[in-house]
Amino acid sequence: LASELVTGSAPASENFALSRLWSARSVAVVGASDRPGALGRLPIEHLLRYGYRGAIYPVRPDGASVAGLPSYQSVQACPGTPELAMIMVSASRVEAAVDDCIAAGVPTAIVCSSGFAETGPEGAALQGALAEKARAAGLRLVGPNTIGSVGVDLGLVASFSPLFSGERTELVPGGIGFVSQSGALGYGAVSLAFERGLGLGWVVNTGNEADVRALEVMTAMARMPDCEGVLGYLEVLDDVGGLRTLASSGVPVALVKAGRSTAGQRAAASHTGALATEDRVVDAALRQFGIVRADDVDDLLDMGDAFAQPRRPAGPRVAVVTTSGGSGILAADAIEAARLTLAGLGAPTIAALAEIVPAFGATANPVDVTATVMSDPTLFDRALDVIVDDDGVDAVVACFCVLTAGDVDRVVESLARVAERSGKPVLAARTGAAHLAPAAAAAMRAAGIPSYPTPARAVRALAGLWQVSRPHMVDVESDESVVPARRPPVEASEIELKSILRAAGLPVPGGRLARDASDTSRAVAEVGGSAVLKAVVPGLLHKSDVGGVEVGVTVAGAGIAYERVRALGGEVLVEEMVSGGLEVLVGMSPTPLGQVLTVGVGGVLTEAVDDVALRVLPVGRREVEAMIDETRLGRLLAGTRGSTPYDRTALVSAVLDLVGATAEWPSGFELDLNPVTVLPAGQGVRILDAAYVAPKED
Amino acid sequence: LASELVTGSAPASENFALSRLWSARSVAVVGASDRPGALGRLPIEHLLRYGYRGAIYPVRPDGASVAGLPSYQSVQACPGTPELAMIMVSASRVEAAVDDCIAAGVPTAIVCSSGFAETGPEGAALQGALAEKARAAGLRLVGPNTIGSVGVDLGLVASFSPLFSGERTELVPGGIGFVSQSGALGYGAVSLAFERGLGLGWVVNTGNEADVRALEVMTAMARMPDCEGVLGYLEVLDDVGGLRTLASSGVPVALVKAGRSTAGQRAAASHTGALATEDRVVDAALRQFGIVRADDVDDLLDMGDAFAQPRRPAGPRVAVVTTSGGSGILAADAIEAARLTLAGLGAPTIAALAEIVPAFGATANPVDVTATVMSDPTLFDRALDVIVDDDGVDAVVACFCVLTAGDVDRVVESLARVAERSGKPVLAARTGAAHLAPAAAAAMRAAGIPSYPTPARAVRALAGLWQVSRPHMVDVESDESVVPARRPPVEASEIELKSILRAAGLPVPGGRLARDASDTSRAVAEVGGSAVLKAVVPGLLHKSDVGGVEVGVTVAGAGIAYERVRALGGEVLVEEMVSGGLEVLVGMSPTPLGQVLTVGVGGVLTEAVDDVALRVLPVGRREVEAMIDETRLGRLLAGTRGSTPYDRTALVSAVLDLVGATAEWPSGFELDLNPVTVLPAGQGVRILDAAYVAPKED
Repeated sequence: LASELVTGSAPASENFALSRLWSARSVAVVGASDRPGALGRLPIEHLLRYGYRGAIYPVRPDGASVAGLPSYQSVQACPGTPELAMIMVSASRVEAAVDDCIAAGVPTAIVCSSGFAETGPEGAALQGALAEKARAAGLRLVGPNTIGSVGVDLGLVASFSPLFSGERTELVPGGIGFVSQSGALGYGAVSLAFERGLGLGWVVNTGNEADVRALEVMTAMARMPDCEGVLGYLEVLDDVGGLRTLASSGVPVALVKAGRSTAGQRAAASHTGALATEDRVVDAALRQFGIVRADDVDDLLDMGDAFAQPRRPAGPRVAVVTTSGGSGILAADAIEAARLTLAGLGAPTIAALAEIVPAFGATANPVDVTATVMSDPTLFDRALDVIVDDDGVDAVVACFCVLTAGDVDRVVESLARVAERSGKPVLAARTGAAHLAPAAAAAMRAAGIPSYPTPARAVRALAGLWQVSRPHMVDVESDESVVPARRPPVEASEIELKSILRAAGLPVPGGRLARDASDTSRAVAEVGGSAVLKAVVPGLLHKSDVGGVEVGVTVAGAGIAYERVRALGGEVLVEEMVSGGLEVLVGMSPTPLGQVLTVGVGGVLTEAVDDVALRVLPVGRREVEAMIDETRLGRLLAGTRGSTPYDRTALVSAVLDLVGATAEWPSGFELDLNPVTVLPAGQGVRILDAAYVAPKED
Repeated sequence: LASELVTGSAPASENFALSRLWSARSVAVVGASDRPGALGRLPIEHLLRYGYRGAIYPVRPDGASVAGLPSYQSVQACPGTPELAMIMVSASRVEAAVDDCIAAGVPTAIVCSSGFAETGPEGAALQGALAEKARAAGLRLVGPNTIGSVGVDLGLVASFSPLFSGERTELVPGGIGFVSQSGALGYGAVSLAFERGLGLGWVVNTGNEADVRALEVMTAMARMPDCEGVLGYLEVLDDVGGLRTLASSGVPVALVKAGRSTAGQRAAASHTGALATEDRVVDAALRQFGIVRADDVDDLLDMGDAFAQPRRPAGPRVAVVTTSGGSGILAADAIEAARLTLAGLGAPTIAALAEIVPAFGATANPVDVTATVMSDPTLFDRALDVIVDDDGVDAVVACFCVLTAGDVDRVVESLARVAERSGKPVLAARTGAAHLAPAAAAAMRAAGIPSYPTPARAVRALAGLWQVSRPHMVDVESDESVVPARRPPVEASEIELKSILRAAGLPVPGGRLARDASDTSRAVAEVGGSAVLKAVVPGLLHKSDVGGVEVGVTVAGAGIAYERVRALGGEVLVEEMVSGGLEVLVGMSPTPLGQVLTVGVGGVLTEAVDDVALRVLPVGRREVEAMIDETRLGRLLAGTRGSTPYDRTALVSAVLDLVGATAEWPSGFELDLNPVTVLPAGQGVRILDAAYVAPKED
């Protein structure tokens, strides 16, 4: 099967080179050794032990045999061109080995050797040179400092991980791909996947990523025709294009992105920059693209189990059926926590359940069929049938405790039947020791019923399944009506910036610079007799902190106010006074995942409330609406007790206009509109303050 | 051993009756049956199978033998007074069985029978009668509708759970107690504890809790001399006194409190009531008393593993030592998430580590000794020694991946040695399949090193260990200087309430009722020329919603403002206008855990920001300070950018005065002071609005 797939790929494509990591029909091991325990012997032992269905070419200068196989003095001397080379020589000899691979026409090499970027600047330079050489020659290079890759179907264990030397280790084949930037943790997770019976098809540790990067390997796995899902452990995530491409594959993806705790360490000049910390951006981007962010290795593998069954929920409404009231409550709690919905069962469903469920059970969701139902399989069957047929149910979580061997067959048969018949995913929680029903896990897996040790874990896995199944936005239609804004100069003053925004059709209050005290009086009169005076001082971002803003200035008070603001050393801007609105922050800032849009609670409460939604750009209207609803703005705009609703429509339009207007600006800038005041419905919004920080390279 | 403990207890004490659930030296099974598979036979089979070291008295009307044992026609006919009776007859015959137990002088009975409160009002009445009878006679009654209890040391399996019929089930003895209100889920969790090797001493399922309640059983377990910790699964938690008593035992406690999702369903008239939802109160009370709230069964058992080792952290500072960079990052993330501290290692520590750790490792915390160190036990030993001796380190989390059998002994020896020597807890994360090192789990456990499958789980367990070890408040010293406040009448108006508060020394703004428009002008002048007018209408809680509040009223505008407010039908209160403060909510409300104090963000943002801290009453100064710091108030009171700090000291005093003043009010009332405005430092606070809802019974 695997060979057919290999043949099916286009050899010249990018995918071809990457898929060699698991589909190569021949492997050279450069730096092979015959000494037992030597790193250069382990992959050869592993290839032999797991029955690799391809050619193994040990490469060593003396041509001596390795583990009983003949060896070759160079890659070029091998009897055929290896489709994959493992380079296991010391760092100083890696370059020569890469040259050898290039000369031989090898498409893909895994550099296992350490001694590169992980050791310091010198190693990093060596690594950079290596990558450049490989790129120039069209060789795809994995690593250095990697433990290697595995193609399970072919028995291609191109890895020296001690996992594969474990006496009882067996490869468990399946349709899930796994990519890790960490070697040891990655293969630890692989061992846990195999232990729980989660079959993997393709495993790659990308190491230092001199050339080949995790996201592109995940995308290549996702393109394998029998791929059911891809899991990843990442420490660095800085390629929004790669993420978009991966998400576009349509294959379910879950990631652990480690390094949350670096969040907040980023220095930033503006509100927007401070709020769009790296970890929040990762959260937002993954959610935006329909990728599950798992918190831990357990959760990641739990997602793999959910991906490996074929059914997908059409919505978030979950029915819980349980033989124990306690499990039902835990499941309901988890459903709320995971932002799924406890399905409201229809009256006919509840009536039908009342005929089936014992009097001391529960016919409302969670449906408690009680332990007595276990003894009567027809009752359990009938209850499940009724529940799954309710149009208000998108998925079923079935909870059991202390399920013993005698009950398992019946339960599995019932669950499998309703899942198959309804096409709705059915997940099980089995809170009890494995030895009570040793065959249960495998039977459930075989029947396409993922099972978990607790109700909460089953529910979280289902929530992930809904996240990858729900409509999400990878590409955004461009809006033709957008007016592009001129790019601000590096030291753009507030007034320059506002004039640029006004020209692009954005709602900026009326106003102008005042020349002196008496001109200020005239300017106040021009904007209606009540004005805000603002210091315009280059580089002064938070002018209200230093007395640079005077509000409610009347014609009479204009002169004194002018002198006070003028004392800060800059010019004085007179603007129409706008009050009675809700203060919102709208901003854009550069992040490792590109320009990010921030919308949230603004004004003086910005930092204290610290409630913003983020999206990587571009975004469409639906995303902006979702951003508002994700934060307290949703409730605040609707009007808290005793206040009228605010002009949400105008806010959404202004944000979309801003996104369109700045779409062509080179990335790297910060734009901080705070506050944008949202007036009562029908009265629009006004950008009261605006600050801009040019990209660093400007 | 267990018998000695039993002898050590005072037989007349309350503890004696409850400890019979696991220490009884004789058990009667009322409703015993010889029929294989019958519920009335299972406990007898279980007692025999697990080698119960006590007398078994089957009780059945016909006196026929059961499982080879002679039976007795009644409890009174047994050859000795049973120390524990299991009642397994149908619901209608339970009362007679209880009478029999009382007549025989049995101290404790477990009513396994179902058909009581879980079936409806009729069953509830039956259950109530049963409890009353037992109480009157001094019989402690567990259940009904329970699966029973277990005393592991004695082999006392007074339970018909199918767990104990499992072919491979073995009891694992240990010092952890486990109490569950749910039977099936509880014994499911017990099976998982045994499966992971977590030894339990005492297990009780309390069922419907007609008489004996979970918290008192947990307290009784905590009082067993060899108790290392108590775990609980609760669905109902409404006994703050019981919780306090349990916490006072000094034994570590962790609870799953299910039913989070009922949060928010509670109807409440005031802000305070709406914010103090049951689930938040549970969170707050457990934190207040130093009890760990576990999220799931997994986490609960993870806590048990941590409790079962003898060392406790003296602080929250964690050193991570790892053989894999990835595990170190995950551990650091988890430390931040769990609100522990990644220890900053001293310069001498880092210098010493630099001599030990390979160049491509890391000498800062997390310390990455790299996989190469595994091959040199002295290096690993020395690194651990250096880390654990750093005074800035309170605990160590050691992370491994794919740990294979050959490495385990060395690792365990190193970890055990430094833990023993330093007295600091050492927890391990081992991310790899069990079969790679089959003896590892048991070896670590035996050495007092709890081990977990992922770094995050190890860190969360450590966080729980810190929570039970850190100083926490169970009893609060009373403040002698407190002025008790008069209890408000049922329909107390704002003005009555404020006058009561003023009399108790609380800071209420000056003001009075105005008789008419011209009196209003005088009243405004009296309070300084700028006033707030408020409608005083009985039952009108949110008066600002309906135009019942006019702010900034001058002497000139007083007449018109009076007429507008008067139009709402009540009286008109004229109060000193106070502005420029930070608006805070201070409230008290009745909850299932008694009167709860709420302090948080107040004013119009109350619901939108929804940021409050809760404590069950009474509280002391330290708790009030902590409440402020738990919420955004901490930052807001310190002054956001550009504003001066507010009078935090006055706020704390006002809250403590309020708590003292109302301490003698009968519980059940709601008091909602919102906003309490906190003025700039030195200027105090003012209670601007106050509302009171009398207890329901008034």
